[in-house]
Amino acid sequence: MELIDIYAPVKSELVKVEEKLQSIGKVDFPHLAELVSYSLTSTGKMIRPALTFLSGKFFKYEKNREVIIGMASAIEVMHIATLVHDDAIDHSDTRRGRTTVYKLWGEEQAVLLGDYLFAKAGQLTADTGNLRVVRKFSSTLETISHGEINQAYNSFNLNQSLDDYYARIARKTAALFSLSTESGSVLSEAPEKSVKTLMDYAYNLGIGFQIVDDILDFTGTEEQLGKPVGSDLRQGTLTLPSFMILEKYPEDNPVKKLCKNRGGQDEINRAVVIIKNSTIVKECYDTAQEYCDKAKAALRFLPEIESRTCLEAIADFVMKRNK
Amino acid sequence: MELIDIYAPVKSELVKVEEKLQSIGKVDFPHLAELVSYSLTSTGKMIRPALTFLSGKFFKYEKNREVIIGMASAIEVMHIATLVHDDAIDHSDTRRGRTTVYKLWGEEQAVLLGDYLFAKAGQLTADTGNLRVVRKFSSTLETISHGEINQAYNSFNLNQSLDDYYARIARKTAALFSLSTESGSVLSEAPEKSVKTLMDYAYNLGIGFQIVDDILDFTGTEEQLGKPVGSDLRQGTLTLPSFMILEKYPEDNPVKKLCKNRGGQDEINRAVVIIKNSTIVKECYDTAQEYCDKAKAALRFLPEIESRTCLEAIADFVMKRNK
Repeated sequence: MELIDIYAPVKSELVKVEEKLQSIGKVDFPHLAELVSYSLTSTGKMIRPALTFLSGKFFKYEKNREVIIGMASAIEVMHIATLVHDDAIDHSDTRRGRTTVYKLWGEEQAVLLGDYLFAKAGQLTADTGNLRVVRKFSSTLETISHGEINQAYNSFNLNQSLDDYYARIARKTAALFSLSTESGSVLSEAPEKSVKTLMDYAYNLGIGFQIVDDILDFTGTEEQLGKPVGSDLRQGTLTLPSFMILEKYPEDNPVKKLCKNRGGQDEINRAVVIIKNSTIVKECYDTAQEYCDKAKAALRFLPEIESRTCLEAIADFVMKRNK
Repeated sequence: MELIDIYAPVKSELVKVEEKLQSIGKVDFPHLAELVSYSLTSTGKMIRPALTFLSGKFFKYEKNREVIIGMASAIEVMHIATLVHDDAIDHSDTRRGRTTVYKLWGEEQAVLLGDYLFAKAGQLTADTGNLRVVRKFSSTLETISHGEINQAYNSFNLNQSLDDYYARIARKTAALFSLSTESGSVLSEAPEKSVKTLMDYAYNLGIGFQIVDDILDFTGTEEQLGKPVGSDLRQGTLTLPSFMILEKYPEDNPVKKLCKNRGGQDEINRAVVIIKNSTIVKECYDTAQEYCDKAKAALRFLPEIESRTCLEAIADFVMKRNK
């Protein structure tokens, strides 16, 4: 199943999210309007808002539809805000094949725009009128920032374990996936047990999603990735494939050398070759598959409606996507 | 009256705010704990939390004291988060006489720490359980970011008016002052009319405060300011004294030259000399005084209790402070 088919039951809601995002750009200050509209023009997969809607569909969805659209929009805006800041601090020129806000308007504007978008996401969340969701929104932003600070602090650091990696991607990625399903289900008045089930699904999906992202950073083409190959390693970020190089070739390997020299394109190229020509890709995919299987297994507690099929299909899509 | 005397009725609450801020630094990740503790070690004037408490004191304060302490802490954390981001994008080495997070840990960590602190401030706000305050918290962050984006966008720009300046400082400074008294009064169950009165007070106080800040940036010493003299102009930020140079010496003046060259220490030095040796300082202070008088006048609608005397004294303090 392609994303367009998976999203079919929530297609009109996703259009509403895009409209809401564009309406945020209607500000009475042309420069800011341009910044906001540019950054919020959807080019991503919209997985997080889709998760929010599909989670809501199991419960009292119709009567809460407008509120859930607001929350799904808040989550997408928060996600984009974190990307705008990431690009600013990583000095990334392209993202999803598009020139970044950082590259077009500079670091200063990118940092301030990110703050503006966090504020907008906070407002959309507050507009739900649901304090549990409001609390979780802020604690999720805390979790993500914690993960990002950890990642930046540990760049080029060989003294870290695979556990550090998993803790980091749980914070950086799984937390927001989890907020997506938690908010969708809470706002549609789901029983607590079902909320937990959907959070469990999203958490595991998020870990699987991030592992695949980390594989693609080595195995994808620049065109597929929308950014240069090996970007993680260039930033000194050790991900699962890098950890496996370190484990399999403890004596002499490009990741070790790159960390010691704090950079080096030759080492990145060598790492790409090793990863592509070893069992590392398969082993990483197997690990990602375990998480996606766990995600799907969690869904067994939910009724077999169309939404469940879609959530299962998202877990399959995460595994086979190439961008 | 000195600040210590003005704050006397809310001294124990301000100590609680400091404790709350320090408790945020108790994180199970030593590097993050260090960053947070360093940034939240209070060295500022704590005017915003004091405004929150003093506003609450007119109404049902005692029964809501704990909630108000949380909100006052949220406001101070949000304020510090904006300063951490400001220093990162301005590449400032010192603030309030202390080395900045940017200087000590770099731009990347400063941006992410700011995000982390915004999240923490959001959590403290959500913990009040008051949706009006939660909404206003996010919209105030939006307003501040809007003001900052405007300031950065208009740096070294001669095609702006005094109205642009006032609109900018209203967003950058007065909005958070206004949130301080609004939240303090709302959380102590003030009638709407009194909330508006206290917001009116704080808004005018905030404008007066910022004008004095902008004067001191030229007339203070580096020791008093805790940062180099003429920092605003160095960033290309035109403030009231600069606008007055432009107005009084339309043909040839250092501000015009600085904007055209996008910098120049000689021009900053010349601007400082002109400002100090003209009526500009007095005229700017007169303007600030008008706002502080308006602030005090707003208080006439409130009962004459100790808090009112303190709020009046803050308006006087704002005018005579030299740092």
